[in-house]
Amino acid sequence: MLHLYYAPRCCALASHIVLEELGAAYTATRIDLATNEQRSPAYLAINPKGRVPALRTPRGVLTETPAILVYLAQLFPQARLAPLDDPWAFAQLQSFNAYLCATVHVAEAHWQRGNRWVDPDDAQAIAALKKKVPQSVFDAFKLVERNFAGEWVMGDAFTICDPYLFTLAQWIEFYGVNVAGLPRVIAHRGRVAARAATQRAIALETASAA
Amino acid sequence: MLHLYYAPRCCALASHIVLEELGAAYTATRIDLATNEQRSPAYLAINPKGRVPALRTPRGVLTETPAILVYLAQLFPQARLAPLDDPWAFAQLQSFNAYLCATVHVAEAHWQRGNRWVDPDDAQAIAALKKKVPQSVFDAFKLVERNFAGEWVMGDAFTICDPYLFTLAQWIEFYGVNVAGLPRVIAHRGRVAARAATQRAIALETASAA
Repeated sequence: MLHLYYAPRCCALASHIVLEELGAAYTATRIDLATNEQRSPAYLAINPKGRVPALRTPRGVLTETPAILVYLAQLFPQARLAPLDDPWAFAQLQSFNAYLCATVHVAEAHWQRGNRWVDPDDAQAIAALKKKVPQSVFDAFKLVERNFAGEWVMGDAFTICDPYLFTLAQWIEFYGVNVAGLPRVIAHRGRVAARAATQRAIALETASAA
Repeated sequence: MLHLYYAPRCCALASHIVLEELGAAYTATRIDLATNEQRSPAYLAINPKGRVPALRTPRGVLTETPAILVYLAQLFPQARLAPLDDPWAFAQLQSFNAYLCATVHVAEAHWQRGNRWVDPDDAQAIAALKKKVPQSVFDAFKLVERNFAGEWVMGDAFTICDPYLFTLAQWIEFYGVNVAGLPRVIAHRGRVAARAATQRAIALETASAA
């Protein structure tokens, strides 16, 4: 049985949606970031990084969204959520997810998680990080915007890239990003939001948070 | 024919070492970061991200180190630089590389590339970022240090994770990181440095820079 550790509507949502897309048998535990549960001894024993998501599997715990998403696609190859039999197409998918992980998500994290990169008591520095987020997040998404292959990230086929992009695009208005400059990203976000699996994953996360 | 775009001894070195480990037929072009060549129209036409590495292949250009490394391992499966036939072991490799890409490398980048996340004219903010690098980079490597599986990152087998870890560990003294607290990472760095492929890749990069 697979077991997902998540916090509501954070980056773990990508893995949650993919579990729903696959119809996988899984259970899930909500980690309460508001009380810093991700840094509790109990959770650090599961994931020493003190972050979500983490996926417990019969073979051990897996962390890092790009790794979790590909692993899930490989566990359920018949769902064809990744081009596993074409190394070049797979490389493009991997490149896209690495960009989301290391550039897009990192740009966003400077809004609320500036303490990772500056002294949390340095209010001026925290504010300086926040100030740049609308531009740096816009620039990161603009590159995605310019390179959209079709209806979905990889073209005609829905893949693990789509819920991941959706997840990171959830809150961009909140960061003050100029979404008028990102019509394809916003239209894509709407298409992923309309899928039953996305709605189930969000409903599960929202219910747990209530 | 494969063609690598790199800058000397930056993160592109991981791909360069793997090309050498594989005995791949490839050519390479040095991109001069000192003159901002990575932002030149000619290079942006190759890689719109304006970064290195980029790998030109007969099927197109591939970017992002984790994607390039896995693609190379898949092109040369007989070299066994990734556990391609074991999804769980492959997921662990992917998780390791995602952590290097999105946490370790990002922590390091706050030293010289702070302009990505704050106004480059805000000298105080740039200094605040730099100030935290010794600690954030140490913390990131400490997690690697605690989880070393054996002689190499994945245990007994040398994989694409090893040159990538080596590449990001190259300069940690320069960032003021307390390397005395990272004996396994430093010993591992020495083992990768001693390999003929590593020495060839570094010699090629250094010669081009002279």
